Amino acid sequence: MSLEQLHSKLTSRIEIFLESVLSEVVCVAKLQDAMKYSTLSGGKRIRPLLTIATGNMFSGAIDNLVCIGSAIELIHCYSLIHDDLPAMDNDDFRRGKLSCHKKFGEAIAILAGDALQSMAFSLLSSDHLKVSERVKLEIIHLLANASGVSGMVGGQVLDISSSADCTLESDLHKLHGLKTGKLIEAGMLAGYLCSENITSNDDYSEIQFVSSRIGLLFQIIDDIIDFTSSTEILGKTSGKDGALQRATYVTLLGVNEARKFAGLLYEEIVIKLNKFKNSSFLLYLINLIYSRNN
Amino acid sequence: MSLEQLHSKLTSRIEIFLESVLSEVVCVAKLQDAMKYSTLSGGKRIRPLLTIATGNMFSGAIDNLVCIGSAIELIHCYSLIHDDLPAMDNDDFRRGKLSCHKKFGEAIAILAGDALQSMAFSLLSSDHLKVSERVKLEIIHLLANASGVSGMVGGQVLDISSSADCTLESDLHKLHGLKTGKLIEAGMLAGYLCSENITSNDDYSEIQFVSSRIGLLFQIIDDIIDFTSSTEILGKTSGKDGALQRATYVTLLGVNEARKFAGLLYEEIVIKLNKFKNSSFLLYLINLIYSRNN
Repeated sequence: MSLEQLHSKLTSRIEIFLESVLSEVVCVAKLQDAMKYSTLSGGKRIRPLLTIATGNMFSGAIDNLVCIGSAIELIHCYSLIHDDLPAMDNDDFRRGKLSCHKKFGEAIAILAGDALQSMAFSLLSSDHLKVSERVKLEIIHLLANASGVSGMVGGQVLDISSSADCTLESDLHKLHGLKTGKLIEAGMLAGYLCSENITSNDDYSEIQFVSSRIGLLFQIIDDIIDFTSSTEILGKTSGKDGALQRATYVTLLGVNEARKFAGLLYEEIVIKLNKFKNSSFLLYLINLIYSRNN
Repeated sequence: MSLEQLHSKLTSRIEIFLESVLSEVVCVAKLQDAMKYSTLSGGKRIRPLLTIATGNMFSGAIDNLVCIGSAIELIHCYSLIHDDLPAMDNDDFRRGKLSCHKKFGEAIAILAGDALQSMAFSLLSSDHLKVSERVKLEIIHLLANASGVSGMVGGQVLDISSSADCTLESDLHKLHGLKTGKLIEAGMLAGYLCSENITSNDDYSEIQFVSSRIGLLFQIIDDIIDFTSSTEILGKTSGKDGALQRATYVTLLGVNEARKFAGLLYEEIVIKLNKFKNSSFLLYLINLIYSRNN
């Protein structure tokens, strides 16, 4: 099977799994509709794919990796719903469709995000995930910390408080390390932890380092795309960072320097990953992240 | 020690524990300030106290019970922040102070709620809770399910969609069983599960039943208070349910019938709890719930 075919097959598995988890409990139809609308709406699933690709390097069971990746994706999708709210980025479009609050109203959007977060932890503590109790708890702890005040949400607070006048690269690294990096890192570390061929603590540290670089690469490319792409290609409002006067790698470095920085990061990540066996799918994903235009 | 003294001592322990957990990671000060503001603002801590009182009946370790109760309280506090938002109940006051979004702005309030939810799961999967891995996972699963689409958030969606025209008691039971009941139930069951003297499955079912009745009693009293109390006594805007045209036990039954129903429930709960050893503190709390006026 080619890497493209593997990519497509795994994306389908993630979609099918998310659809089935979101359909498990029919309780409050309107809420569930909103949760499905915002989760099953054609995302690239890059976070779960990174989880799976990392687990693959250590012979992780695919069912477990899909489950963990999907929990990460639930967290990611809830954060997009809340980020799009009028009080936050006030974005009417997401993935080429109306954002959740434009479609279902603000109250339902807030609550759908809340319930998606709970669902991620319900999923990881359920029988869907067939790893030891110790590993399950470790993964839950990783994800909870990556999502909260010292992770994604903390980063979002720094982001909405940031201004395009930001002149310190270290501040921007911190912001995006929290907002984007921690969740990618938690997903990749969880993919590693649930796998069978875990041999050394060095691997954990290596995955931790490389995942933080991947998070950074992802964000720089995001900033470049936001600056250069049209809304049509992007599927969400483009030029948003500029309009909101947010600090980005483009406002800080200029677009050419940002591109150069991304190139250096890409090379560094590739060198690191080449040391691992079975890293071809992860390398394929890194290449996608590096060369994407939406 | 009298039950009043025990009540006061345990409330202090919960406050101190919450304060210490909320101070553990200093990462994004503004976010942490908002989380502390809304969590350490003089709530009655009835949910964690119910958790502790239930665990007490089965010789649960107090440190574990405080930890679990505090995780429940973090979920409760996040839900209050989100419920108060303009898109939801639009309430400017909570516990006699400005609500979170009036004090910190809407964006920070949404994010503080989000981060409090993550923190609850971080706490339960941490070393603070010293029970077996199996029991930890069971408690995390209980809390995640009680919080999400088939629990608290689902109930909140039913609540904001409800109208004072609601004429079915079963609809109102479902609404409040989800919105208020599930979290109280999860807390009491978790208090039971983490304890040492667990002898029979019957006890689990009994706790489950009685906790659902306690949730219902709590809600009916809440509705009566909202209808009869002043804003000053309540610490939040009174008469809110009526102004929002929401279904309540008062709109459904009238205030006298609602009071009668609460009395019957109270008696039923007391009879059930009298069968357990060491239930005096739990009975004391039920009496507080029944006779409270704010």
